[in-house]
Amino acid sequence: MVRKPERGSLAPRGASSGGLADRLRLIVVTDAAAAAPGTVEDVVAAALRAGAPAIQLRDKNATAAELLRTARALRGPTRAAGALLFVNDRLDVALAAEADGVHLGEDDLPVAVARRVAPPGFLIGRSADDPALARRSADEGADYVGCGTVYPTSTKPDAGAVIGLDGLERVAAAVPVPVVAIGGITSARAAEIAVRTSAAGVAVVGAVMAAPDPEEAVRSLRAPWEARRGRTQRP
Amino acid sequence: MVRKPERGSLAPRGASSGGLADRLRLIVVTDAAAAAPGTVEDVVAAALRAGAPAIQLRDKNATAAELLRTARALRGPTRAAGALLFVNDRLDVALAAEADGVHLGEDDLPVAVARRVAPPGFLIGRSADDPALARRSADEGADYVGCGTVYPTSTKPDAGAVIGLDGLERVAAAVPVPVVAIGGITSARAAEIAVRTSAAGVAVVGAVMAAPDPEEAVRSLRAPWEARRGRTQRP
Repeated sequence: MVRKPERGSLAPRGASSGGLADRLRLIVVTDAAAAAPGTVEDVVAAALRAGAPAIQLRDKNATAAELLRTARALRGPTRAAGALLFVNDRLDVALAAEADGVHLGEDDLPVAVARRVAPPGFLIGRSADDPALARRSADEGADYVGCGTVYPTSTKPDAGAVIGLDGLERVAAAVPVPVVAIGGITSARAAEIAVRTSAAGVAVVGAVMAAPDPEEAVRSLRAPWEARRGRTQRP
Repeated sequence: MVRKPERGSLAPRGASSGGLADRLRLIVVTDAAAAAPGTVEDVVAAALRAGAPAIQLRDKNATAAELLRTARALRGPTRAAGALLFVNDRLDVALAAEADGVHLGEDDLPVAVARRVAPPGFLIGRSADDPALARRSADEGADYVGCGTVYPTSTKPDAGAVIGLDGLERVAAAVPVPVVAIGGITSARAAEIAVRTSAAGVAVVGAVMAAPDPEEAVRSLRAPWEARRGRTQRP
């Protein structure tokens, strides 16, 4: 059973932290293979046109030089659209490309270490699928937690156990920073997450990268969060 | 034919740049497979006992988290021995471990970009096997150039063409920063390089990592440079 968010509020946790939670309602994670025959740059451009508030560049197969080239190619459009740009794993590439932040997993630099190297205001996300790790990540300075795998997915075969909505809510209830659900997210599932958990948003790979119409995909993934915001803002 | 170093001097180029050239007479590059069944940490400890002035941590198979753990394990001993510690490729790991510098290749961050991200005084090395690339690297802010493959080698199967002593000297003559020869270096070849080129030193992988006696290997790799220094200091 998914517990009701505490304090009877459906507002995402961390909503007070400078509007970051609002900007994490949807993180579009790149995947060159899923975008083919299109390019990551083209799909990101479409996602930004549809109002995607955050992009995470991820390419485990790219060299640092290649990753930097793509990050730089995405920096202008994301900045122009007022969207956040994160780079997966490589803090050095993120800093070099003047990205807004880095997303770290268990094989990457520890959050506390990245926090010391990064300049003030630089955003750090950390993957965590259980409350203890999520709390530790927040304590070490993570600005948000990416939580999953929520639903089974094919785009990240190395993803861990499927934790479901219950597991997601346990993490979201455990930390004071925004929690973003990842893993097998579709627009229907985004709606379910928005209604039934206190997650701040969702991160998607295939749902946008492999979509026949990435703009439409982004709009339908955004809709549940706008609806939730409308509900919480009613007197 | 190897050209004689200009100005009739056998002093390494870059010898004036704060003593860096002296500290680059020998860079011991790590290789976990070559060190087996020993550990990289043990071989580095032996190399430091024998006076190795610089260590470069390289492990293309390690995650960032693993690389950081090894870099931290090497930071104390290298600092205590007064030796430089470089990390291959990962500027972020190098910064996080408080290494003295990073070594960059063609797949890594461009030198100019790394220079902007790194703090003042942080050392940046760049691989370059031709004079034009070496000059560009120095212009972008590289503190030294790693030049090779000088001799055929098995420890870096992705290394480029074998350039020989002629190719090495062309690079060494082209740049104002120290040039370190890499690729198939043995103590006999180090002696040849010290006598016949203006390279500042040599970088070795297998010659120390896979040596039956790493201390002895370091001593014999250092010897030609001490002998050259003796010659150039004669009135």
